[in-house]
Amino acid sequence: MVDEIAKASLLYDFYGALLTEKQRQVMALYHEENLSLSEIAQEFGISRQAVHDTLKKAEQALEDYENKLNLIDKLVKTEEVISLIDEEIEELQKMASVKEDSQTVEKLDKIKSIIDSLEG
Amino acid sequence: MVDEIAKASLLYDFYGALLTEKQRQVMALYHEENLSLSEIAQEFGISRQAVHDTLKKAEQALEDYENKLNLIDKLVKTEEVISLIDEEIEELQKMASVKEDSQTVEKLDKIKSIIDSLEG
Repeated sequence: MVDEIAKASLLYDFYGALLTEKQRQVMALYHEENLSLSEIAQEFGISRQAVHDTLKKAEQALEDYENKLNLIDKLVKTEEVISLIDEEIEELQKMASVKEDSQTVEKLDKIKSIIDSLEG
Repeated sequence: MVDEIAKASLLYDFYGALLTEKQRQVMALYHEENLSLSEIAQEFGISRQAVHDTLKKAEQALEDYENKLNLIDKLVKTEEVISLIDEEIEELQKMASVKEDSQTVEKLDKIKSIIDSLEG
């Protein structure tokens, strides 16, 4: 399972492009630069409450996008499947090594590098 | 490559949930039910031009989402990679069959069914 902080980060990675420029800036300062609400308020010349509201509204918008599109849900499932395939291929490689079947080992290496390119 | 009609359909599948209810209804009547602009206009009691504008606005919104999120682009790449893996596994299975290595054939069957679950 994805924990809450990882999920917040995934939400931002997936849907951040749909936020307004201001929302993105405030989120980045708060979550990535770890500035306080007051520090961000000073930066933008707005009230601490306005920063708080912008953050909440942005977080809600990201949640709404996920509720409608479920992409993170799909991504997590895809990653689980890929890691299952990875495990099976590891086992096959062990079997092929025992049999000294270098042709199969090489082919499996190729598949593993294809999978790696998918994850990259 | 994805052709234009397939792309329009993918755009709708991916981002349709972000359109307004009215936009979705008009798109469904036009693209799925193949109603004419005039027929849809009658259905909603609005002008033919208003239907046309709704369609264009909805299509533009879908394009904008893809330009920002690039999910279809990513999906197409993922599918290409998965079909590459599929091909490699087919070859491995042929090799294992020739060697009468039923253990490997079975394991490869298992991997193929995992891949199928990803595509489903």
